[in-house]
Amino acid sequence: MPLSHDSRYLKGGPVAKRIIAAVREDAAIAKAAGFPPKLISITVGDTAAVDVYVRNQRAKAQLAGIDFEERRFPATITSGELEAAIHGLNADPRVTGIIIQRPVPAHIPIRTLQAAVHPLKDVEGMHPASIGNIVYNQLDLAPCTAAASVELLKETGLDLKGLEVVIVGHSEIVGKPIAFLLMSEGATVTVCHHITRSVAAHARRADALFVAVGKPRLIKADMVKPGAAVIDIGINSEIGPDGSSRIVGDVDTESVREVASWITPVPGGVGPITVAILLRNTMVALSRQRALYEATYGTADRLAAE
Amino acid sequence: MPLSHDSRYLKGGPVAKRIIAAVREDAAIAKAAGFPPKLISITVGDTAAVDVYVRNQRAKAQLAGIDFEERRFPATITSGELEAAIHGLNADPRVTGIIIQRPVPAHIPIRTLQAAVHPLKDVEGMHPASIGNIVYNQLDLAPCTAAASVELLKETGLDLKGLEVVIVGHSEIVGKPIAFLLMSEGATVTVCHHITRSVAAHARRADALFVAVGKPRLIKADMVKPGAAVIDIGINSEIGPDGSSRIVGDVDTESVREVASWITPVPGGVGPITVAILLRNTMVALSRQRALYEATYGTADRLAAE
Repeated sequence: MPLSHDSRYLKGGPVAKRIIAAVREDAAIAKAAGFPPKLISITVGDTAAVDVYVRNQRAKAQLAGIDFEERRFPATITSGELEAAIHGLNADPRVTGIIIQRPVPAHIPIRTLQAAVHPLKDVEGMHPASIGNIVYNQLDLAPCTAAASVELLKETGLDLKGLEVVIVGHSEIVGKPIAFLLMSEGATVTVCHHITRSVAAHARRADALFVAVGKPRLIKADMVKPGAAVIDIGINSEIGPDGSSRIVGDVDTESVREVASWITPVPGGVGPITVAILLRNTMVALSRQRALYEATYGTADRLAAE
Repeated sequence: MPLSHDSRYLKGGPVAKRIIAAVREDAAIAKAAGFPPKLISITVGDTAAVDVYVRNQRAKAQLAGIDFEERRFPATITSGELEAAIHGLNADPRVTGIIIQRPVPAHIPIRTLQAAVHPLKDVEGMHPASIGNIVYNQLDLAPCTAAASVELLKETGLDLKGLEVVIVGHSEIVGKPIAFLLMSEGATVTVCHHITRSVAAHARRADALFVAVGKPRLIKADMVKPGAAVIDIGINSEIGPDGSSRIVGDVDTESVREVASWITPVPGGVGPITVAILLRNTMVALSRQRALYEATYGTADRLAAE
């Protein structure tokens, strides 16, 4: 594997490992103080497509000392019944974080579910209020893939202040949150998408280029500024000439790595960090719940003394 | 007044008038259906600085047939007391919208107050959940100044899809919301700020340039692309050579109007529309409250029949 010998590759594994080790310390401290972290994973209907992700989340949660419990609901459940189940989890003090595995069946509006999760238990950072808090510069709890992408950029050591950043892809949970996260860090951010007149013209002036559109090998070497950092968030399945399938990103890695100073491999770049961020978010959510608890009850002595 | 004869000026007055006329119709219909709109304005401490704004809001609300009531609190009030007052207004079915006039005294955290307003009564569009909803492409309730600025751009008739937009200023309630509003409309958006390496280089490639930084005459003619639309959101007080003070924007209007195809006068551009948007937001908020009411009670027959 030549990857491991090439400093141009921004690999997610070591970053994820570091984050999980820090989470493990936090989780142990919280547990000792009477606040054990616990994640509930919700899957609806046919879960074959997500099983591998859920298994991975469970394994990483165990590694971090975070309790992980699965709740599986049938495809026939109504949106109202699911919301009620989520409200029940919101009200359960043993549950400190809720994950809604996607996709859900077509008759369930995913946004309604995401909004039903209490913002203080929203470890995926998907609730509108969580998104809004990022805009208000509260950056510690963001959608996992967006936060993972920013972590990788930070690995380069580049100064984010004044950095020219171009993001290709303006989805609500990846492209846009990356934009606010980096605006808050002082970067100058441009967001491009499928209607942009010339993505290439924008991409070529980027010190850091994020790509999240789901188009295999969209970004070629001539679209990248020499010395740039390229963060590839795409995950596409490609059938090779021999009929075998493999995973490729939105960036033509082989050609772009000759131009860029840093590039993320796919797989092995953003992906591994995403789960680590989910666990880090779990501890952020827990510490907010704990702060609320302590603000509510911590004044009991004072009240009794009054 | 040469302004009124020059088609290059994007004047806010006519746009505001049109919006208020539409609100007036909506308000009358809602009132007839048993849902009268009512705004509560909250001022804290010394209100001299905001009195002129509040008076204007009251006058425009009356014009639109929206009830407007002022609540004044002393500068000595605690943040907790104010939050309790807001929670009381949230729970009052006669109150359909709450405005927190800024500034508030330094000991009151404005963001806590904004977050205390129920999202369904957040006519200023300042609650984190309101901001997050814009990111999720629900564009009908946005911070007033941001929405007003976008209204003025729409007046040009330019196709927003693929439009190259540059925003100078990345505040949470103006620059950033303009960015999401226009991303959702298909524009390619760049957000610049005081750390940006070359604001001029970005500004010069913009089809539409928004400026909201509070620096008098920051944008000169040589920073503007010929034919661009320039939306000036700055409001600065300038002392003239004769010692008199006047209001100027962030754009050097006299020189820029020779280059730009459209430019907003200051005052008289974005300002008048801002209040109109506040009233339009009031009707959006009311219709969401009404939808919730009807979803809750409209099923009574069905429940009784089961």
